[in-house]
Amino acid sequence: MTTNALICLNSPYEFWQLSNQHASQLHSAFPDVRFRFVEDHAVADEIRDADVYFGWTFDKGWLTTVSRLTWAATPSAGIDHWPVAEIQSAGILLTRGYGYHGQPMTEHAIGLLLGFSRGLFESARLQTRSVWWKDNLANSFFDLNGQNLTIIGCGSVGTQLAGIAQALGMHVIGVRRHSPRSEPGGIEWTPTHRAHEALARSRAVVNLLPATEETHGFFDEAAFKACSPGTVFINLGRASTVDHDALLIALDSGTLAGAALDVLPHKPPPLDDPLRHHPRIVLTPKSAVFSRTYMNKAVAFFHDNLQLFLADQPLNGAVTPTLGGPHDH
Amino acid sequence: MTTNALICLNSPYEFWQLSNQHASQLHSAFPDVRFRFVEDHAVADEIRDADVYFGWTFDKGWLTTVSRLTWAATPSAGIDHWPVAEIQSAGILLTRGYGYHGQPMTEHAIGLLLGFSRGLFESARLQTRSVWWKDNLANSFFDLNGQNLTIIGCGSVGTQLAGIAQALGMHVIGVRRHSPRSEPGGIEWTPTHRAHEALARSRAVVNLLPATEETHGFFDEAAFKACSPGTVFINLGRASTVDHDALLIALDSGTLAGAALDVLPHKPPPLDDPLRHHPRIVLTPKSAVFSRTYMNKAVAFFHDNLQLFLADQPLNGAVTPTLGGPHDH
Repeated sequence: MTTNALICLNSPYEFWQLSNQHASQLHSAFPDVRFRFVEDHAVADEIRDADVYFGWTFDKGWLTTVSRLTWAATPSAGIDHWPVAEIQSAGILLTRGYGYHGQPMTEHAIGLLLGFSRGLFESARLQTRSVWWKDNLANSFFDLNGQNLTIIGCGSVGTQLAGIAQALGMHVIGVRRHSPRSEPGGIEWTPTHRAHEALARSRAVVNLLPATEETHGFFDEAAFKACSPGTVFINLGRASTVDHDALLIALDSGTLAGAALDVLPHKPPPLDDPLRHHPRIVLTPKSAVFSRTYMNKAVAFFHDNLQLFLADQPLNGAVTPTLGGPHDH
Repeated sequence: MTTNALICLNSPYEFWQLSNQHASQLHSAFPDVRFRFVEDHAVADEIRDADVYFGWTFDKGWLTTVSRLTWAATPSAGIDHWPVAEIQSAGILLTRGYGYHGQPMTEHAIGLLLGFSRGLFESARLQTRSVWWKDNLANSFFDLNGQNLTIIGCGSVGTQLAGIAQALGMHVIGVRRHSPRSEPGGIEWTPTHRAHEALARSRAVVNLLPATEETHGFFDEAAFKACSPGTVFINLGRASTVDHDALLIALDSGTLAGAALDVLPHKPPPLDDPLRHHPRIVLTPKSAVFSRTYMNKAVAFFHDNLQLFLADQPLNGAVTPTLGGPHDH
């Protein structure tokens, strides 16, 4: 029986859209698969006889109409907006992407770390108003070289980030629930229950935690109090993992030298949100995964998985109830 | 005869001062050398019977009083503020430091590149006033990964910067007058007279040129016109190598996506200087070489050279009239 693959990958941004070229590539590579490329509104109807679905979102209402769906795939690393339990209860395999978020997120994290450590954000703010701000920067800067960086939720993305941090002369402490299957060189692995000890030894912290029940409010008052004075904190994970009131207190007490948040409790945040106006907070609009080559890599990942699927082999990025979080890859 | 070494390394910043610990280290390492550690005002008198001088500055008036000086050393990489010709005419060997400016300058350059490429400066500016600025960043960002970086004046510092840029997936074109003595891996070497071709192929440019007659106004209207649209330009070299009127025109025509200047024609720049107020210019106050470990490394470099000096061996970092520029190491 022919495999029906339904693909719905639209976005306001070109770099997150499936292009005609991607569609042609899939047609050529899998002449026996019947592909349909549709707009969002058409999925509810078209998913009825699909074997495979590849898209950004999944409406749990679709589960009442599917008849043949055995595999649902998303290019995202995070799946907290997907009805994971319902999909799995329906016996449908769910896969998410990994391996290609690390490049843009590494660039983003390193840029933010250096933006604080070298006083670049401070400099850009002072250049319009201060006669000469060299003393300000001489007081506040620090070398990344020689410092410890703790990566919380250190999986595939964190390991890639660690490589660049190490090239810059940092020592990396990788915090995660489970020991990694392979040991990337030079990272000091620490279990989650000892995270506070890692924070106390670090000058820079990058949070990559996914949104789960376990990670909710992970960065609370106690976590920030555990940080060493002058720490730079970068959140590229999920907003729910951070207590933002505790974050503001930690900034004002000097525990945090600066904080960058790519994920926020409210999108967009209110114009009078204190997170917008603190002089040592930099906000980015969930742009850490922006990459012009994103969809090329996401389609290549799906291509490889579709080959495995047709050959009845285990798929990459399979989400299981016990190993689910994005910080495990 | 006892060697007299006069050391004057003061600075408003602790990390550029010789500490008591550094002084003790030198005393212990060279028990037969007579060290004197003095303040700026005392050099003119104390240099009379010095064999060796190690300091930030050199007043050419001192040359009328020296009787035994055979070696003058500075921790700086740049020597454009030293009376080089006069020192050399007096038969005094001049050395400058190299090898330890690369770490902070690499951190600075990479931070500035990513600050522009990932829209971090733009984001920090928009976060206080724009309801939601995700579309702005989606339009303007680019991946450093896969792009070409041209380093003008690619010597010791540039080679270290190249290593990190390569780790981030960039291809590096190193422009310099002379072929390097050894070939650091993966850099595409280009002679200075073909620099414009390198600029045309690059999305990012880091200028490390020293101030010499040859390099004056190197980045003129023609050089900026040679750049490809959307280029990020970083100047960590000397202000005299850039025509800043041409730079502003290149920003407004879209040739340059952004520019960061660590060196300026006027220090401090006038409060109404357009360089301060352009939304796509970031100024840093000559802080690219700020490093908390600077003096440890500078003293270690001097220590090694003093050993060579006492053993009558050739010194590291010797400045010669023909090979003088800091971009050759």
